[in-house]
Amino acid sequence: MIVLAEKGISEYGNKLISFSKNEQKSDEILKLNPRGQVPTFRDGDVVVNESTAICEYLEFKFAEQGATLLPSDAATRGRVLQRMFETQNLMKTLIEGVAYLFFHNKPEEINQDELNAKKKAARTELERWEEYLKAEGTDSYIVGSQFTMADVFLFPLLAFGVRGNLNLSSFPAINAYYQRLEQRPSIQETWPPHWKEGPGTDFCSGI
Amino acid sequence: MIVLAEKGISEYGNKLISFSKNEQKSDEILKLNPRGQVPTFRDGDVVVNESTAICEYLEFKFAEQGATLLPSDAATRGRVLQRMFETQNLMKTLIEGVAYLFFHNKPEEINQDELNAKKKAARTELERWEEYLKAEGTDSYIVGSQFTMADVFLFPLLAFGVRGNLNLSSFPAINAYYQRLEQRPSIQETWPPHWKEGPGTDFCSGI
Repeated sequence: MIVLAEKGISEYGNKLISFSKNEQKSDEILKLNPRGQVPTFRDGDVVVNESTAICEYLEFKFAEQGATLLPSDAATRGRVLQRMFETQNLMKTLIEGVAYLFFHNKPEEINQDELNAKKKAARTELERWEEYLKAEGTDSYIVGSQFTMADVFLFPLLAFGVRGNLNLSSFPAINAYYQRLEQRPSIQETWPPHWKEGPGTDFCSGI
Repeated sequence: MIVLAEKGISEYGNKLISFSKNEQKSDEILKLNPRGQVPTFRDGDVVVNESTAICEYLEFKFAEQGATLLPSDAATRGRVLQRMFETQNLMKTLIEGVAYLFFHNKPEEINQDELNAKKKAARTELERWEEYLKAEGTDSYIVGSQFTMADVFLFPLLAFGVRGNLNLSSFPAINAYYQRLEQRPSIQETWPPHWKEGPGTDFCSGI
């Protein structure tokens, strides 16, 4: 949705799916994606289900429209691709690592030693991104002076953490980056509606 | 390495790393990739560590050279991107699911119920790819009549399975695809040298 907004595309009939109602396994979704996973995406006859594939498809098809998210200079593009796919490490430690424990266990079932180890791994990962942003300098994006696909991948992971009470005060470069990107129109327009209703599960305090 | 071969690039000074000697954590690698993971890749001053990022960087930089791995027709490219990223499901069930148990446990420590559940999930996934290949028709690749990046991602996962005694006889379309791609020069040239020395761990029988 951030990519669509960056490309200036707003009229696309999106539909919010409720996991708690198991709507991702509805016939409507299964027809597009037999695995019953979201996001799923259709453009005419083209169906694309994997989120990275959707983002890359949109960037390619609308290359001349709106922001250029994959730069045409090969060296810069290489750096963007590196950071874009490197966000998987943040996904693994912060979301699949720490958050998963909270979403799949009752509070009393969570092993505190396991939780602390996972929080430590997430912190180590966040420290890497803090260093990357420091090296880029003030007012930069994660790769240089332009918003790119690497930011499209990075920002939502940080936002997921912040919603889970991730305290960014000990990551000043991430904090400044987060505050700035939070105001970006494509981010504001695509903010999950239920995130505006109240705080999320507190899974990130103490990281 | 398959992408490099498809682009006709052979003189690139690659170095085989031994996990059993922990060489991925050597200073030489850590200088390029602080996480100590492989593959790592350097092209002049451009360092790219994530395997998908490396493949996409090479395809972009050498777009006019050798095979076109990401087609320029948007609809076809969408299908290639979909299949390419969808291979993650095969990776998760076959490699991170089944193989992981064998590589991280002594044989007597493996829970047979857990193993059977993981083998079943891998089989369900393989059945999807069997259907995809059937729908493409005889002598096709995973997307249409051209070898693409989706094949670059799919073939090594199947080869990893076959080395682990995956029996393809109940997947006739996968079997035909595998036999044909195995002969492709880019696949032959990049076959892991130690795979020629003998069979791997038998983790796939009974899938």
